[in-house]
Amino acid sequence: MSTPLVSILMGSKSDLPIMKGAPEVLEELGIGYELTTLSAHRTPHRVMKLAEGAKKRGIKVIIAGAGMAAHLPGVVAAFTTLPIIGVPIIAGNSPGGLDAVLAILQMPPGVPVATVAMNGSRNAGILAAQIIGASDPEVAEKLANFKEKMREKVETLADEVEEKGYKAML
Amino acid sequence: MSTPLVSILMGSKSDLPIMKGAPEVLEELGIGYELTTLSAHRTPHRVMKLAEGAKKRGIKVIIAGAGMAAHLPGVVAAFTTLPIIGVPIIAGNSPGGLDAVLAILQMPPGVPVATVAMNGSRNAGILAAQIIGASDPEVAEKLANFKEKMREKVETLADEVEEKGYKAML
Amino acid sequence: MSTPLVSILMGSKSDLPIMKGAPEVLEELGIGYELTTLSAHRTPHRVMKLAEGAKKRGIKVIIAGAGMAAHLPGVVAAFTTLPIIGVPIIAGNSPGGLDAVLAILQMPPGVPVATVAMNGSRNAGILAAQIIGASDPEVAEKLANFKEKMREKVETLADEVEEKGYKAML
Amino acid sequence: MSTPLVSILMGSKSDLPIMKGAPEVLEELGIGYELTTLSAHRTPHRVMKLAEGAKKRGIKVIIAGAGMAAHLPGVVAAFTTLPIIGVPIIAGNSPGGLDAVLAILQMPPGVPVATVAMNGSRNAGILAAQIIGASDPEVAEKLANFKEKMREKVETLADEVEEKGYKAML
Amino acid sequence: MSTPLVSILMGSKSDLPIMKGAPEVLEELGIGYELTTLSAHRTPHRVMKLAEGAKKRGIKVIIAGAGMAAHLPGVVAAFTTLPIIGVPIIAGNSPGGLDAVLAILQMPPGVPVATVAMNGSRNAGILAAQIIGASDPEVAEKLANFKEKMREKVETLADEVEEKGYKAML
Amino acid sequence: MSTPLVSILMGSKSDLPIMKGAPEVLEELGIGYELTTLSAHRTPHRVMKLAEGAKKRGIKVIIAGAGMAAHLPGVVAAFTTLPIIGVPIIAGNSPGGLDAVLAILQMPPGVPVATVAMNGSRNAGILAAQIIGASDPEVAEKLANFKEKMREKVETLADEVEEKGYKAML
Amino acid sequence: MSTPLVSILMGSKSDLPIMKGAPEVLEELGIGYELTTLSAHRTPHRVMKLAEGAKKRGIKVIIAGAGMAAHLPGVVAAFTTLPIIGVPIIAGNSPGGLDAVLAILQMPPGVPVATVAMNGSRNAGILAAQIIGASDPEVAEKLANFKEKMREKVETLADEVEEKGYKAML
Amino acid sequence: MSTPLVSILMGSKSDLPIMKGAPEVLEELGIGYELTTLSAHRTPHRVMKLAEGAKKRGIKVIIAGAGMAAHLPGVVAAFTTLPIIGVPIIAGNSPGGLDAVLAILQMPPGVPVATVAMNGSRNAGILAAQIIGASDPEVAEKLANFKEKMREKVETLADEVEEKGYKAML
Repeated sequence: MSTPLVSILMGSKSDLPIMKGAPEVLEELGIGYELTTLSAHRTPHRVMKLAEGAKKRGIKVIIAGAGMAAHLPGVVAAFTTLPIIGVPIIAGNSPGGLDAVLAILQMPPGVPVATVAMNGSRNAGILAAQIIGASDPEVAEKLANFKEKMREKVETLADEVEEKGYKAML
Repeated sequence: MSTPLVSILMGSKSDLPIMKGAPEVLEELGIGYELTTLSAHRTPHRVMKLAEGAKKRGIKVIIAGAGMAAHLPGVVAAFTTLPIIGVPIIAGNSPGGLDAVLAILQMPPGVPVATVAMNGSRNAGILAAQIIGASDPEVAEKLANFKEKMREKVETLADEVEEKGYKAML
Repeated sequence: MSTPLVSILMGSKSDLPIMKGAPEVLEELGIGYELTTLSAHRTPHRVMKLAEGAKKRGIKVIIAGAGMAAHLPGVVAAFTTLPIIGVPIIAGNSPGGLDAVLAILQMPPGVPVATVAMNGSRNAGILAAQIIGASDPEVAEKLANFKEKMREKVETLADEVEEKGYKAML
Repeated sequence: MSTPLVSILMGSKSDLPIMKGAPEVLEELGIGYELTTLSAHRTPHRVMKLAEGAKKRGIKVIIAGAGMAAHLPGVVAAFTTLPIIGVPIIAGNSPGGLDAVLAILQMPPGVPVATVAMNGSRNAGILAAQIIGASDPEVAEKLANFKEKMREKVETLADEVEEKGYKAML
Repeated sequence: MSTPLVSILMGSKSDLPIMKGAPEVLEELGIGYELTTLSAHRTPHRVMKLAEGAKKRGIKVIIAGAGMAAHLPGVVAAFTTLPIIGVPIIAGNSPGGLDAVLAILQMPPGVPVATVAMNGSRNAGILAAQIIGASDPEVAEKLANFKEKMREKVETLADEVEEKGYKAML
Repeated sequence: MSTPLVSILMGSKSDLPIMKGAPEVLEELGIGYELTTLSAHRTPHRVMKLAEGAKKRGIKVIIAGAGMAAHLPGVVAAFTTLPIIGVPIIAGNSPGGLDAVLAILQMPPGVPVATVAMNGSRNAGILAAQIIGASDPEVAEKLANFKEKMREKVETLADEVEEKGYKAML
Repeated sequence: MSTPLVSILMGSKSDLPIMKGAPEVLEELGIGYELTTLSAHRTPHRVMKLAEGAKKRGIKVIIAGAGMAAHLPGVVAAFTTLPIIGVPIIAGNSPGGLDAVLAILQMPPGVPVATVAMNGSRNAGILAAQIIGASDPEVAEKLANFKEKMREKVETLADEVEEKGYKAML
Repeated sequence: MSTPLVSILMGSKSDLPIMKGAPEVLEELGIGYELTTLSAHRTPHRVMKLAEGAKKRGIKVIIAGAGMAAHLPGVVAAFTTLPIIGVPIIAGNSPGGLDAVLAILQMPPGVPVATVAMNGSRNAGILAAQIIGASDPEVAEKLANFKEKMREKVETLADEVEEKGYKAML
């Protein structure tokens, strides 16, 4: 795999099934990444070290997924000026995931976190690619193709629904 | 003032009018405290240093007030095993303060924060006193008197309302 | 078991599977506890008696779990100056547990309840230990070890994820 | 005033401007009431005594208004089998009054509280009258007249709007 | 069965499993009732007729359960001065039942609905009995016994938990 | 004014300042309307009569604004097959207007209400015009011009902002 | 099938099981429709083309169903003056569907969307028919019959419940 | 001013006081921007043209602020692969700004929007700078200085609070 440009972080192994959308889409787009688990509350020094060293390692964007009182993205943002993408993870003992959304989104002036949809790890990966693509024409072109294929797929389905009628598609 | 047993933290000077209930009630109860402003996102190393050193300084309880994506109490909790009391502060650009409540309350297993009511700094101070009083008979007695006076005050008012009728009290 | 220092209360037998995290973690930490079921609405005199007598029995912290219009923690707090930890239990006929959170959290000035996460009984137990540990060096040391082991466990997992790659961990 | 049939309770003097709708409408309907302030958390024994003695004093309905973690109606309900009407009061440090609504409404099986609208003290008074009127023909007739007058007032306004046009009414 | 004193209404057959708590508890207490299904939106004239005639049929309280934009209790209240108890039913396509709670609770001044907990049909039945019991000593005594048995049941369980320990009860 | 095609209803005179957007935009578009105040809960027979007779009077769309437990639109819908547009009005003692939104929106299968934005009376008027314009080419053309002018106004502003810079526009 | 008067749109094939209520009820009422899938975000040009051409194709109403950040109804509304009916679809990673409700409902002045209940596709179809029926007596009559049959069905059930008793119906 | 790298969009002139934080912070950091007003619903073609041409104009990031059913950021995202930053604006007739948050955040897979805090235009500007800084060392250094100054300012305040005591700072 190519040099990691994106760092993907999450609090525990149990977040992997929800967070895997990020590495998957980065692989589709041929963008290198690193991925690990670590906790803002249980391994704060490791988070600090990882965040402070990210830039020197060549990382351009950090994706952090967290649920409940989701502090990981904001704590990472405290230790670096790289753009941080936060993925609110819907946990079991949660008011429908709103706790994670608000704990990631509502950052104070000076320390933003780019929040994506609940469980939106795939979009986090695409946004990371868009951030890299803003200055990298090769990635930008891949994203353009990616968007075009997405469009084609939806239109092919639309043609099929229009041709066959909705009952055949149920 | 006596040796600080309680450390009172908040993100900025603008939180003082809401957080002052904590030092006020500790003064009423004759319990020493330290108080400072610091930010989980803008001064993370200072937070870490303060939290890690609290126990050695003789601190027994930490009160942390924060609004919006209120990470301060949880970040402090990451660096110490002292009990942390979190005060959700209702900020201006907030869905009624629910962001701060959830970002403080919903801590993951292993790292609790004792959350009190929205803007409930006075109760944070009383809770800190109760925690100290659990092992300090002198403080416990002060709390018993405090509770008794509170009861008397409410009953005096009740007697007045019952005697004069509600219209006289409007 | 050692002398009870923590009293664990809940409304009914059906709360046991959610509340058992509290006694479990107290056993891990070697802290004695008592546990019973009682209802603020169906056995109010028993609640009053238990709360008023807790201090004399040597109890230092009370944990109370409740769902829906979760009055138990607050009613216990009315009858004692010991610190009360409230656990909001997510019930079936509830707007995602927010009823229990707000009914426990939003206590009026003078009578705090230390609220933890939804269904967060394990954290309630740890917070109780932290409160005792604030004045008991032996418990404080156990908590430090506990925190250290938690860190190690998360780091071991992180090492494994980094070594094997996330796909192997799904 | 006639013998009190309704007991009107609230937590503090500051609730009077919101709760006064209840005594006012009971006066309009000629139904006797008693009114006092007392707190489920600060004067629990007084609440217990008042609730347990209500029936013997001839009280038929109890109205209790409370805000935030609004326990007063539910605690009163624990000590009597009289019907309890709860008025959720919108407090300042509250998520739009939803805390009081849920803390009053979501009572467990066996101990109901008849909850009315936020700050709906006037409706609490009318509901108390309806409860009395269910078995008292004289009160029932007063309520019928009251409803009829309300209808007339709305229709008179409607006639005026239809006649003059809405611009004249702004 | 004895003469109906309570009228139990709901929108459709599918509400029966949730609403059956009301007739069940009324049978336990020996209070007669009538029960039917009808819709504020699909059979408005039938609702009007039933509500306007209720008093003459000897009905003293009406219980109405409804979900979503739960208009049934309020529409019934428009046509009678009898006390109306509303049961918010949690429907499938609903934000956690909050739609039904608010659509029943937030009645305008003059036309109250006594709202009980989400899916709280059993409590609706008990509240209806309390309303009747406010003027009927026989029903009042039955309610006192009912409350006493409830207390005993909870205390028996508490004794068992205390004796056997919580592990045996899981 | 031309023959009324739209009937505009609201619960009280105090709703006029919020609801006036509907008659205003209908006047701009030259569509006749009738307007009155009436209450689903206080004048239910008048509502029924007005709704059942609307079609015969030549009414093609009904707009109904209501707050809190906003039943008026749904109750009107029960008595006619004309399209009903509901305007949720944000009231004072309300959780941010969500009560009115849900009480209007969440109608059961068979009896829809076309809900518009909170306090969105102007949009209710435009939607009424669109409904009429669906079959009336003259109204359709007016709507096309209306839309075009709206676009021009926004673009003129945009040109101004782009030319002068945002600071001049503050 | 008759000429399409209603255009039914949704974002993907997976919305069909929820949206099928709209074509089904239009078929019951004998109203022609077209149905396709397309995405405001993935096929924006197709949406624009379809919306701008709808009127010329003879379409009188457009129904658009969408979940999460549900932009489809509003984006369609931007390109036409036909009435648009929006169906909020409850998605998996969503706070109970409130995201879709608010993203469809809260349109700015000038561009309304007629929002129906969560997952309320059947009501969207009926509302479309009501809009057409406002100017088409034949459709209006079908709707009157439809409403009458609905009433009969509810009343037949009510008669059955009243006759057999609720226990037989569980 | 230097060549625009950031495009700042909002729906109307009235959004300027809330959105001005973005251009202000970009000026502080010496990053060129363009700024205009345009509406996803009232000028959809202009939005499309602006979004599709942004990349060719040299734009690297787009910031879009919107309130209520906040479609602007998502609609812009439909027409470009540049990273889009969405600012949820708290509007008057809104449930505390949650409508805008959810309508911006909850984008479907494939088309992300980087959402920042409510009214968080300043953070949107900083995030835009971080995105540019990910590949531009000069901007990265400016951001590092910016962060350092922010830290210093908070620490200076902390020193002052600690020295003078909180009462002097109220």
